[in-house]
Amino acid sequence: MRIGFIGLGRMGSGMASNLIQAGHQVAVYNRSPEKAAPLVALGATAAQSVAEACRGEAVITMLADDPAVESTVFGDEGIRASLAMGALHVSCSTISVELSRRLAEAHAHASQRYVAAPVFGRPEAAAAAKLFVVACGAPDAVEAAGLLLAAIGQRTFVMSTQPEAANLVKLSGNFLIASVIESLGEAMALVGKGGIELPAYLDFLTSTLFTAPVYRTYGALIAEGRFEPAGFAAPLGQKDIRLALAAAEDLRVPMPLASLLRDRFLTLLAHGGDALDWSAIGQLAAEAAGAKPRA
Amino acid sequence: MRIGFIGLGRMGSGMASNLIQAGHQVAVYNRSPEKAAPLVALGATAAQSVAEACRGEAVITMLADDPAVESTVFGDEGIRASLAMGALHVSCSTISVELSRRLAEAHAHASQRYVAAPVFGRPEAAAAAKLFVVACGAPDAVEAAGLLLAAIGQRTFVMSTQPEAANLVKLSGNFLIASVIESLGEAMALVGKGGIELPAYLDFLTSTLFTAPVYRTYGALIAEGRFEPAGFAAPLGQKDIRLALAAAEDLRVPMPLASLLRDRFLTLLAHGGDALDWSAIGQLAAEAAGAKPRA
Amino acid sequence: MRIGFIGLGRMGSGMASNLIQAGHQVAVYNRSPEKAAPLVALGATAAQSVAEACRGEAVITMLADDPAVESTVFGDEGIRASLAMGALHVSCSTISVELSRRLAEAHAHASQRYVAAPVFGRPEAAAAAKLFVVACGAPDAVEAAGLLLAAIGQRTFVMSTQPEAANLVKLSGNFLIASVIESLGEAMALVGKGGIELPAYLDFLTSTLFTAPVYRTYGALIAEGRFEPAGFAAPLGQKDIRLALAAAEDLRVPMPLASLLRDRFLTLLAHGGDALDWSAIGQLAAEAAGAKPRA
Amino acid sequence: MRIGFIGLGRMGSGMASNLIQAGHQVAVYNRSPEKAAPLVALGATAAQSVAEACRGEAVITMLADDPAVESTVFGDEGIRASLAMGALHVSCSTISVELSRRLAEAHAHASQRYVAAPVFGRPEAAAAAKLFVVACGAPDAVEAAGLLLAAIGQRTFVMSTQPEAANLVKLSGNFLIASVIESLGEAMALVGKGGIELPAYLDFLTSTLFTAPVYRTYGALIAEGRFEPAGFAAPLGQKDIRLALAAAEDLRVPMPLASLLRDRFLTLLAHGGDALDWSAIGQLAAEAAGAKPRA
Repeated sequence: MRIGFIGLGRMGSGMASNLIQAGHQVAVYNRSPEKAAPLVALGATAAQSVAEACRGEAVITMLADDPAVESTVFGDEGIRASLAMGALHVSCSTISVELSRRLAEAHAHASQRYVAAPVFGRPEAAAAAKLFVVACGAPDAVEAAGLLLAAIGQRTFVMSTQPEAANLVKLSGNFLIASVIESLGEAMALVGKGGIELPAYLDFLTSTLFTAPVYRTYGALIAEGRFEPAGFAAPLGQKDIRLALAAAEDLRVPMPLASLLRDRFLTLLAHGGDALDWSAIGQLAAEAAGAKPRA
Repeated sequence: MRIGFIGLGRMGSGMASNLIQAGHQVAVYNRSPEKAAPLVALGATAAQSVAEACRGEAVITMLADDPAVESTVFGDEGIRASLAMGALHVSCSTISVELSRRLAEAHAHASQRYVAAPVFGRPEAAAAAKLFVVACGAPDAVEAAGLLLAAIGQRTFVMSTQPEAANLVKLSGNFLIASVIESLGEAMALVGKGGIELPAYLDFLTSTLFTAPVYRTYGALIAEGRFEPAGFAAPLGQKDIRLALAAAEDLRVPMPLASLLRDRFLTLLAHGGDALDWSAIGQLAAEAAGAKPRA
Repeated sequence: MRIGFIGLGRMGSGMASNLIQAGHQVAVYNRSPEKAAPLVALGATAAQSVAEACRGEAVITMLADDPAVESTVFGDEGIRASLAMGALHVSCSTISVELSRRLAEAHAHASQRYVAAPVFGRPEAAAAAKLFVVACGAPDAVEAAGLLLAAIGQRTFVMSTQPEAANLVKLSGNFLIASVIESLGEAMALVGKGGIELPAYLDFLTSTLFTAPVYRTYGALIAEGRFEPAGFAAPLGQKDIRLALAAAEDLRVPMPLASLLRDRFLTLLAHGGDALDWSAIGQLAAEAAGAKPRA
Repeated sequence: MRIGFIGLGRMGSGMASNLIQAGHQVAVYNRSPEKAAPLVALGATAAQSVAEACRGEAVITMLADDPAVESTVFGDEGIRASLAMGALHVSCSTISVELSRRLAEAHAHASQRYVAAPVFGRPEAAAAAKLFVVACGAPDAVEAAGLLLAAIGQRTFVMSTQPEAANLVKLSGNFLIASVIESLGEAMALVGKGGIELPAYLDFLTSTLFTAPVYRTYGALIAEGRFEPAGFAAPLGQKDIRLALAAAEDLRVPMPLASLLRDRFLTLLAHGGDALDWSAIGQLAAEAAGAKPRA
């Protein structure tokens, strides 16, 4: 397929690379153009503008946040203005439910197709084509996106014909991971202050009831206080909890645990945690317990 | 080994049965004596009193709560008064850290040995000798308990020479499970009100990031609103969160998520939830969102 | 002074009336024009547009929310486009800190003056010129607004030269009132379920430690379950807590009590509470305690 | 009246002094006997034991906590064993609802009368006979206590024939005060980080909506960070919130704001705040916001 790929950060680079390797003709674009070179070496062409990345059957976007997606889609030279009728926009970014809804409307109005397909996984999973993808949208659009998504992930879950439902699922997933971090942080503050060695405790937890990798990964980071370099930076975590709470507010769903997470992230950021991994909120319980000095 | 086993509820019956089958001579005792019959059929003897169950090298207790353990251990005919010097009390009940500490002192004073060995697992796991055991105490006592614990569980984790540390770990574990229930409850309230089908959502979660059985088990119960019969009743869950908070208070560890769980359990019990499974707190988020009628 | 007054709701009508009675020449404007008639009877002129209300030395706005203020100020025929250089915009609406900051910039750019002057008090206080006013802005602008504000309130508090600081104070004040409602709701749920008669309890509280009228007023509403008609409707309360949390997020200030209030409002609105007084969140504690049926 | 008075701390000394000055014959007792001297100088007699303080028509206790009251009332030489049939125990201490219930039963069993009469006010109010008293119990007992209570307070509120109801009201009152501290702490963290001068802010609040002295007193302490010497020490505040939560748990009343206060107190105490005034929890919001260094 002839496609464009916009957004060549740590996630996007891996995804684009896998699309090239799957045989697609990929025109890559990034605001800072030096990110394109390694992909060109793999066979991509370097688009000089968003518009130039929109000349194929589909364009995939993997951008940092709502403003980045907004400015890339709307505007005179944006995706909406550039994409052909019937062509497809696959939005993999983690964005707000509300923006996804606006994208859906804008593309429908321009007779373009739109699939929201946020991904789960860290950069290593993106590089290895091991992402999990949640894809929602009109059935024909989701079908058209199928081969592309198969190239970047290990499995695609289709859950709704409403594109923005995929973004809600993505936000809920990050809420669940952050909840794991918080619960581990509190449990480890408790048993740690009670004299238990944390590595033994984590070995116990992850050998028995909590075998999911998310417990193993984040438990170790918290136990070791190892929050740099950030795999997923705290401000991104804070953003996602904010977007989850915004979606919850629109739907009138009280989420007290999400509110607690919000306050944790604000505490972390208020103390200079911008460069830390989001799991650093897992040390705040121990700090409040006087068991760890404030970083 | 010649031992006693006190407390033949759903958990204790399975555990005693496995001890018998492992070749130990077991004198079983339960306050309501009819529970002993099936075990006698397997080869146990029926003790007529607590004291009679204390005539061997060790006695294991698996009782419902602090008052039950207190009345069984202390008092004129209790374990402390009946157990021989050097003999061993293995306490598998989920009790408070503070009571476990008092048991340790009392047994030390009576020159008896004491191991706190709370177990993780539902009645089916107890019946299948698949429990996980956390055992803490003096090394010689833990070693002496080793064969007994091997008969009831699939693995024993030794974490500290302080017996009460095991109880703290047990309470922290139930806190972590209840946290999973709460986080799933909020996430499902959110995506459910947003139009996602919950079975598909759970399939996604448990196939990707949250593969631990606890997510699968409790997610299904919450999605289906199936809280009866109770595998682990709400009042027991409430008790364990109360004990975790009490231990946290003694150690001066703020646990805001545990406080939230406390309020969830009180809400559930205030609305007649005593007979429900503790995972019924997972429906409270949807109720608060107006998405489910109050049961 | 020759002024315009835009926004003739329950609050604005009383305020405009007091300005007329203080001798100012007032051109009144409201989107639905029938609200102007009683004020015209008092001596006002009826402006036919926002622009027409901007022909004097100053214009006062008293509107419902951010979108209403935005559409009135910006746009081709809005206040910014219509007000003379050097003329004054006094914004009394409860709006976000962020919008107030944008208004300040826009007016500065247009060489107009701007004072943020949110008011405290219910419609009766507005009618009686008994409002409290918090006014912030450049000293000359605040001074120019002085006589106008004196006509609508009993006292003006000047706290900062940054206009948006006044909006932050206003939002914090509503947060404090909502906190009183929540604390009373929980206390009354507790003592009420414990068998205390609530009127006697409130008499005690408000005769001793909590003599501020806010305790008397809201305590009685909660005790009697009298939430209609709304003096200040729940959606407005929810909006103000949302704006307080948004300002707190920008400043990286965790506010767990504000988060709790947010969840209370969402619960209320999720159960059809849109027409109720905001103090209806004060009954949610009793409902969670099973002491009151869900309305 | 011929009475005993047990507990001569800062509160009790003032109360006993006022009883003496009102003409009662008072036998005073304190565990550390040197506290009695100033009262003997005013006309009291110094009892050498609890029993000796129980020889009159009534005995008043004003002790620090549950254990102090328990050991004074129960035991071989305690109040229950020493007080004459028909004589009256007036318990002014802030104790748990559950202990008050046990006191009521014990005294009824011994044909003694019992009134729970906790007091509101700081030591200066106790010295000036300006306390507020909440008195509950059987009508004849409350009537019999009337003159005594009139001597120590400015007003007595009778709310229930169940003695322990008075203790519930007392605990709820301290919960409400602590809620004021928390709400002020969050509001001041917000506006302070937003650039508002706190003294001006407090002047505004306490001149307008929040005129109750509790706002003025605690607002100033928080604004100035002046938490020593403690008027009411943090561990006592923590104890009262714990007792309020325990009563709420018995009654199955979820109190999320009380849970938040609990966590605040634990955080304070975990950082060495034992000697601080309880209003020091009001600085924790600013600390979490990074606006104040941890004390």
